[in-house]
Amino acid sequence: MNIQDIIANKRDGKKLNTDEIKYFVEEYTKGNITDYQAAALIMAIYINGMDKEETTALTIEMAHSGDILDLSSISKNVIDKHSTGGVGDKITIILTPIIASLGIPVAKMSGRGLGFTGGTVDKLESIPGYKTEIKVEDFIEDVKKIGISVIGQTANLAPADKKIYSLRDSINCVGSMPLIASSIMSKKIAAGANKIILDVTVGSGAFMKNKKDAIQLSNLMKDIGKLANRETICVLTNMDEPVGYSIGNSLEIIEAIECLKGNIPEDIKEIITTIGSYMIKLAGKGNDLEENKVKIIENIKNGKAYNKFLELVQNQGGNIEFIKNTEKFEKAKYILPVTSKEEGYVYKLNAEKVGKISVDLGAGRLRKEDSIDKSVGIVLNKKIADKVNTGDILGFVYANNKQRGETAVEELLNAYEIVKEPVKKEEIILGII
Amino acid sequence: MNIQDIIANKRDGKKLNTDEIKYFVEEYTKGNITDYQAAALIMAIYINGMDKEETTALTIEMAHSGDILDLSSISKNVIDKHSTGGVGDKITIILTPIIASLGIPVAKMSGRGLGFTGGTVDKLESIPGYKTEIKVEDFIEDVKKIGISVIGQTANLAPADKKIYSLRDSINCVGSMPLIASSIMSKKIAAGANKIILDVTVGSGAFMKNKKDAIQLSNLMKDIGKLANRETICVLTNMDEPVGYSIGNSLEIIEAIECLKGNIPEDIKEIITTIGSYMIKLAGKGNDLEENKVKIIENIKNGKAYNKFLELVQNQGGNIEFIKNTEKFEKAKYILPVTSKEEGYVYKLNAEKVGKISVDLGAGRLRKEDSIDKSVGIVLNKKIADKVNTGDILGFVYANNKQRGETAVEELLNAYEIVKEPVKKEEIILGII
Repeated sequence: MNIQDIIANKRDGKKLNTDEIKYFVEEYTKGNITDYQAAALIMAIYINGMDKEETTALTIEMAHSGDILDLSSISKNVIDKHSTGGVGDKITIILTPIIASLGIPVAKMSGRGLGFTGGTVDKLESIPGYKTEIKVEDFIEDVKKIGISVIGQTANLAPADKKIYSLRDSINCVGSMPLIASSIMSKKIAAGANKIILDVTVGSGAFMKNKKDAIQLSNLMKDIGKLANRETICVLTNMDEPVGYSIGNSLEIIEAIECLKGNIPEDIKEIITTIGSYMIKLAGKGNDLEENKVKIIENIKNGKAYNKFLELVQNQGGNIEFIKNTEKFEKAKYILPVTSKEEGYVYKLNAEKVGKISVDLGAGRLRKEDSIDKSVGIVLNKKIADKVNTGDILGFVYANNKQRGETAVEELLNAYEIVKEPVKKEEIILGII
Repeated sequence: MNIQDIIANKRDGKKLNTDEIKYFVEEYTKGNITDYQAAALIMAIYINGMDKEETTALTIEMAHSGDILDLSSISKNVIDKHSTGGVGDKITIILTPIIASLGIPVAKMSGRGLGFTGGTVDKLESIPGYKTEIKVEDFIEDVKKIGISVIGQTANLAPADKKIYSLRDSINCVGSMPLIASSIMSKKIAAGANKIILDVTVGSGAFMKNKKDAIQLSNLMKDIGKLANRETICVLTNMDEPVGYSIGNSLEIIEAIECLKGNIPEDIKEIITTIGSYMIKLAGKGNDLEENKVKIIENIKNGKAYNKFLELVQNQGGNIEFIKNTEKFEKAKYILPVTSKEEGYVYKLNAEKVGKISVDLGAGRLRKEDSIDKSVGIVLNKKIADKVNTGDILGFVYANNKQRGETAVEELLNAYEIVKEPVKKEEIILGII
């Protein structure tokens, strides 16, 4: 077997067999296949596609390219929750302590942000002292001790995916269905959970721009999960506008804390109750989804979820005084209002644009080596379907550089589309697969 | 402009504009675009194609990536003859002295062999002393002095093509029509001739396996030539079986010398008279092709072509005693006959197989850094349509390693297909475009 023949097969639109895919993943990870040969193959895959079998083989091989965590000592059922990425997406931070407070163990390794979407690890690190780099053994011990741990990816999980993802990024081959599905699922399989719930985001602020693609991706991931013996549920959520009202690292932590204290915006409430109800079901702790939703709301109201979050933060070395009093978080130097110049109803609020504004302010990174500014970002005041009068504040820009802040104000204004007629609120949950 | 967007455009099947192609060629040659980004783009071009305008732009940009020779001091019309490659192809070695003997200047830079096809430079170097590396100024002076020079590529011609060709080779993207056409034409344009004649080979021993593809390639190259102000004629020649009877470096030189002495196999005669008659026409030395053919045969018969070859060899430092007496060439240690086990007529003699056997014997190179054995190769005795009796010799294997030689005997026997019914001789000239 050699890479030249494998390239030629996919170049000519043929199906690759498992041995060919195994050879590619192993030899590329070892460095025996060059980046340019891998790039040629990835482009051929992008253009000519891969079927379900090929995608599953790629997933399994990438998963086995590094460590496979064994979380079986924690519980019979360990559930991993993952989002395909979005703007203002702080769901993991809110949902994991809720689930843990219901007695379901949560062992969650999260990622950093790249591009216009943020990452849970970056957000958590805006809590002073919070350690996201913890040895795998300690991570498992922490879950056994307090029922929850949320950290960064410390184990050598799916290094082949890491290498291939970075290559895809530099040759503009990220947006391919089989490559996205295998990338997500290889990491989930390596991360050791036996039940997987995926928040598949759909809309301007997501990789999947429309529902049709999201359904296709979901079915593909569900099928891969089945073949890999991982029960998988996909929840399609609307990402046409940002999730909640805050975008930016400490700003999102503050919003997450508010949610855990009971002040939850409608969209977040719908997402956490829906995804959460399936997590409870997957854990074998309740088959009635409506009842599960009630349990979630209860544990927010009675403070158990909030207390679990405090416990999590303290256990990871974070300063809980910041959680108790969010005024302690360092504020950005400039908080600039964005004022509407017209009257009407918000018809669109482009999540991708908002994400990019946030990155330009310094809240995200364009390249892996970029550092990020924890305090900057955006706090929205108006969202889709809201009534707006001339002079109303649409949102606030949080900036540490005045000029960048002023540019952001202009751009945020442009991210809004306001129409005369009333607008129907969009659906948040677009489907369960 | 950035390479990511260019990759995305071709990935999505869009047409690249001249600026994008210019940017790619310039920045890749400079090393500002990585090999893996170029590989992704080349694969996208392979799969999604390029139209005539894109191909011409790529050709022009590659031609201008290095030196452009100025041969105008030699003559108003300088003609370059190029073959798309074949097995046993010694046409350049025979034809250039004939043309020069007719008073038409020949300034020819040739290539080395790679893969199953041989190269003129390797063949000429089997003449002891023959120097193929000569400065451009001396090359031009030589042509002015004796009317002919045939050397290797010494100038920095089309370095972008060199880099892209080597990449194509390692990612299995050689066989793409627009990439083949632009690679050939960029070197021809840089090489300075204003009239180009291309021997487009067709068949098992050529890149173009069928006439349809060869016609398409020819039309593409002719169009590029027109847009680049280079009159271009393509002669389609049959490469289903090897050209002439000898394959291998010194063996082909010996056959070329025999041809110049008047002992010309029919297929070689047809190719040199056809291509030669167009070269005379392109040089403005005679519009009547049939008359031109007569002139070619005359100058072989009267010894003028042979004498011009002697002059060429002497001028390049080669030992002409070897030309006068070809017995002086070092013989391979083992000369093994290949005997027919059946009776009938030769139906097929696979040129690609013969080329590969020759490479395995050591006559060619699989990688650029391989060295070659000048004396080994094959001398055929029977070609397509020939009558064969059981026990007849089909050909001889010239080997310096007995075991390799014996393997070659087996393989050469397999390259022949013998049938009971008489076979019609194939046409040699398949078209003029």
